[in-house]
Amino acid sequence: MDETKFVKEIASKEEAFSQWYIDVVKKADLADYTPVKGCMVIKPYGYALWENMQQCLDRRIKATGHKNAYFPLFIPESLLKKEAEHVEGFAPEVAWVTHGGNQKLEERLAVRPTSEAIIGSLYSKWIRSWRDLPVLINQWANIVRWEKVTRPFLRTTEFLWQEGHTAHKNQEEAEEETLKILTVYKDYIEQDLAIPVIIGRKSNNEKFAGAMHTYTLEALMGDGKILQAGTSHNLGQNFAKAFDIRFLDENQQEQFAWTTSWGTSTRLVGGIIMVHGDERGLKLPPKVASVQMVIVPIFFDTSKQEVMEKAREYKSLLEKKFKVELDDRDSYTPGWKFNEWEMKGVPVRLEIGPRDLAQNQVVAVRRDKGNKVIISEKEVESTLEKWMADIQNNLFLQARSRLEENIRFTDNYESFKEIMEEKRGFIKAFWCGNEKCEDQIKKDSKATIRCIPLEEHKEKGKCIFCGEESSSLVYFGRAY
Amino acid sequence: MDETKFVKEIASKEEAFSQWYIDVVKKADLADYTPVKGCMVIKPYGYALWENMQQCLDRRIKATGHKNAYFPLFIPESLLKKEAEHVEGFAPEVAWVTHGGNQKLEERLAVRPTSEAIIGSLYSKWIRSWRDLPVLINQWANIVRWEKVTRPFLRTTEFLWQEGHTAHKNQEEAEEETLKILTVYKDYIEQDLAIPVIIGRKSNNEKFAGAMHTYTLEALMGDGKILQAGTSHNLGQNFAKAFDIRFLDENQQEQFAWTTSWGTSTRLVGGIIMVHGDERGLKLPPKVASVQMVIVPIFFDTSKQEVMEKAREYKSLLEKKFKVELDDRDSYTPGWKFNEWEMKGVPVRLEIGPRDLAQNQVVAVRRDKGNKVIISEKEVESTLEKWMADIQNNLFLQARSRLEENIRFTDNYESFKEIMEEKRGFIKAFWCGNEKCEDQIKKDSKATIRCIPLEEHKEKGKCIFCGEESSSLVYFGRAY
Repeated sequence: MDETKFVKEIASKEEAFSQWYIDVVKKADLADYTPVKGCMVIKPYGYALWENMQQCLDRRIKATGHKNAYFPLFIPESLLKKEAEHVEGFAPEVAWVTHGGNQKLEERLAVRPTSEAIIGSLYSKWIRSWRDLPVLINQWANIVRWEKVTRPFLRTTEFLWQEGHTAHKNQEEAEEETLKILTVYKDYIEQDLAIPVIIGRKSNNEKFAGAMHTYTLEALMGDGKILQAGTSHNLGQNFAKAFDIRFLDENQQEQFAWTTSWGTSTRLVGGIIMVHGDERGLKLPPKVASVQMVIVPIFFDTSKQEVMEKAREYKSLLEKKFKVELDDRDSYTPGWKFNEWEMKGVPVRLEIGPRDLAQNQVVAVRRDKGNKVIISEKEVESTLEKWMADIQNNLFLQARSRLEENIRFTDNYESFKEIMEEKRGFIKAFWCGNEKCEDQIKKDSKATIRCIPLEEHKEKGKCIFCGEESSSLVYFGRAY
Repeated sequence: MDETKFVKEIASKEEAFSQWYIDVVKKADLADYTPVKGCMVIKPYGYALWENMQQCLDRRIKATGHKNAYFPLFIPESLLKKEAEHVEGFAPEVAWVTHGGNQKLEERLAVRPTSEAIIGSLYSKWIRSWRDLPVLINQWANIVRWEKVTRPFLRTTEFLWQEGHTAHKNQEEAEEETLKILTVYKDYIEQDLAIPVIIGRKSNNEKFAGAMHTYTLEALMGDGKILQAGTSHNLGQNFAKAFDIRFLDENQQEQFAWTTSWGTSTRLVGGIIMVHGDERGLKLPPKVASVQMVIVPIFFDTSKQEVMEKAREYKSLLEKKFKVELDDRDSYTPGWKFNEWEMKGVPVRLEIGPRDLAQNQVVAVRRDKGNKVIISEKEVESTLEKWMADIQNNLFLQARSRLEENIRFTDNYESFKEIMEEKRGFIKAFWCGNEKCEDQIKKDSKATIRCIPLEEHKEKGKCIFCGEESSSLVYFGRAY
């Protein structure tokens, strides 16, 4: 068994990022392809990561007063059609159920591409008075969008997500909610997933179909492309009017409600891979790692019993505070195990051999650093506690440095195109606000406006494409 | 506002059980109907209950070595057809996707009615050697079965469940797994949901489509009908042969794997309602209640401030150990709140008024008993801790007494039919094993064999229908 084979089998991150990504997904056992076109299976190791991500975010969503519920998977076609922009945006991606058992249905059912329509129809029934507001509901669900080109986690026909849907009595409250969620998402993505984001507003071209405006969180990936990590939409009264969500206000006047919706998905698993991963595979932030540390016993036949005993002792001690795995497989060498757990991105590896036993110590290796550190037995617990926080922080800081290095300002269109072709990353440039400029820039460089900063820039400059004066300094990038 | 109106609005449990059930579902705010035929929305209060149930069971499933994963929602028709009995059983209930966007699909996709087929196709790819076995995977997912007559939680076109799918190297291990899960389910349903069950094997008529045999857990509902609470299937090599799940055994011989599958669903929410509920609404077991105790402050204008202060103090104290709600709504009277929280089945209500403040006490009312008890402030925490365990236990014991009173033996077919018509419950009767007798009994009395006990009866008796001698004493009942 060639111990290095494991790592050699994945493509180079530097040279072939896309292939590297796919290789890591498969080699780290996160997901696999299925006989269903465009649909993946999330394997146990990948799903455990997703469960931890869910827990982190669910806690934050509940702490801000939202409650979970579950709405139907199917949306009758007539209902989906009620909001014109919305159906126009989603119709090309909808999977349609036309038969139930052996019977043709009277009306086709959409497999939800998002749930504004079905939820709106119920809010219309539930909301009567200002006393019923706000309604603050979140749903964890599967979503189907018919995609032509798919990649595990990043773009699949079926994916998992959470979608929040809220209703409010006035515009201010709806806007406050939309922005509050932006903060919830930022905290989750930065503090739990250790992925730094740039937040802002979407241009009209890029906003959610049917929304008044969309806020977004955008993250830089390892290949310089940009991942939309989450979005929060202020839907204004568009959906309330389409789905008839009305209430009597404090003055007994009938009003349409103001609604919002917001979502993040299993895409972020892809984000974790692409932000933190390296040539040796995954690197997981301790807060979401399903295995935070692995113990690898190292022994000869003569020392097996006592080494295993000590390893089990460490496991019982450490699993009170951490998620610990003891790799006691006989059929693999320690070297093979080191490679495999590095590929799987486990934050810390502990090695225990006969010599360590004699010296009352363990050898510990951080996935983010790689060098061997000797820790005395009585300091293992406290050291590892410090390390967990430190690794979490270090992954974030490393990613933030890369992000900062890859935000470039330019006011020269030739240099804009050159950067997009060679270095990618974010480009900050002035934009006049005209969709025609936006479209032409996309044609020339594949770059889209990732977001418009929330605070308007003080000084004016010239639109990177047409040269017209503008105070809107926006972020461009090539999107995933 | 008429304080008693709340309760009066639900039908009588004694006189109109079916209507009572629907009324409680709606009045306790668990679920609602939707514009999608046969599909319900699980509202926040109902979903919080389901989340707690999930946590209870998920812990047990993981503790027995299983891991969660997520498989595609869609199953290509050709794949579903591979196991003949399986497709025959499920085809009439399948929702079919025929179009993706504007394009007709080359092959129809089933919306999963259960996932044996898609999971089998992947196990076939993942399993190569005996070293890969056992595979122990569970999935939490939504399921669609086209139902003609639906009732919230009990039978809906879409429902939520968990489905375990395991593969083993020989028949013994598969059988052991199937039975182990039966125990996991029994512990969950009895200890967490406080619902006593009778366990056993299904007759061929009632077993899972494609299984070798099916184990089941059957529970008595408040109207004497029986709810199938969970099933665990030993699939033998049927699915392994259909989906080509082969491995090389220790002797380098190629073998088909032995597989199992098992599931429980949101049906059990219906079970909780129908087992524990009473004329005043829901009664939730503390282990799964999303609100374990509610604090209702009682005050006049002059005492409002100090009562509210004390109520908040109790909340901070108690929420360290319990799930506590403080009902500080101004627009409802205490009497209204009492009724509402009783309807919602909250295990304990605490009332705090000016007099209680003066006496350093609270008034406490158990949902399962109803009488007022005065608890001194310094004993609140310890008393409530005892109460939680006691209520959990009491609900189970009450349900078990009702179960025991409603298991009747008979060897007379006329009396069998009479009992099934009037008292229902379980009837223990001998059965010769012939499907024809089983079918005729069902025609005559709507009773089916709910289960065949795991241990064969020692003495012989005569088949309740044909009179032939048999040692099989089985449980009959009218099923939900």
